[in-house]
Amino acid sequence: MDYALSHAREAASVGEVPVGAVVLDARGRVLSTARNEVEAGHDASAHAELLAMRRAAQRLGTPRLLGCTVVVTLEPCAMCAAAMVHFRCERVVFGAYDPKGGGVEHGARVFSRPGCLHIPEVIGGVRESASAELLRSFFRQLRMQP
Amino acid sequence: MDYALSHAREAASVGEVPVGAVVLDARGRVLSTARNEVEAGHDASAHAELLAMRRAAQRLGTPRLLGCTVVVTLEPCAMCAAAMVHFRCERVVFGAYDPKGGGVEHGARVFSRPGCLHIPEVIGGVRESASAELLRSFFRQLRMQP
Repeated sequence: MDYALSHAREAASVGEVPVGAVVLDARGRVLSTARNEVEAGHDASAHAELLAMRRAAQRLGTPRLLGCTVVVTLEPCAMCAAAMVHFRCERVVFGAYDPKGGGVEHGARVFSRPGCLHIPEVIGGVRESASAELLRSFFRQLRMQP
Repeated sequence: MDYALSHAREAASVGEVPVGAVVLDARGRVLSTARNEVEAGHDASAHAELLAMRRAAQRLGTPRLLGCTVVVTLEPCAMCAAAMVHFRCERVVFGAYDPKGGGVEHGARVFSRPGCLHIPEVIGGVRESASAELLRSFFRQLRMQP
């Protein structure tokens, strides 16, 4: 999660919403990292965890991330949670809970829908305060700008 | 929808699940097209409509597809429906309903969640039988393979 947080900080430094992600393989080795790239990439789907999953799958040469863990600093939204189903991720570990935009413990609760094809293990709230403070401080600064 | 269907047929011809998509701007001009590229791209998130939205946003140079319409041959899954929220799409027109994998009229029903930040207009069932038959025939052939 420290590694994911460092990518979140990097996002903030270039004006992107500070969320970072890391994908680990079944043995705990880092397969990929990413940070939000929505603004620079002109891509509203360029959330850190989705980019990290795509990069990990590229590296493995398969659209399935069997046995892999996605570590991300913020609760995934419905888009990213549903992508975790498609990628067949084994586990998701996230930092701050996101009552407004989250899709795991809030909103669409993607993994809790009857008929969900694959349900990753979910561990939320890891380094929660560090992740949340990073986001709070980013949006505080944004509001102070003219 | 005919144009989206032609991309779906192209997907089937290369062994991808036959779904095709087109993004139109506010004046009805084609901004982008795509077909499923999950297998060839080693990317479980490479659904036709998500690729088409990303391409349209690249072309416009902004992560927002204000006023745009996504035309797709199959009901979007939760991932793609949530991406339509992030991209602020104005309208989604889809072909076949997808009771198992859909996330608009089924499953997570992304646009129907309280607090959904942006709700596109939804028109489902356009050229439904042509879209559904393409999918049925693809999976029938797949099951017949050794």
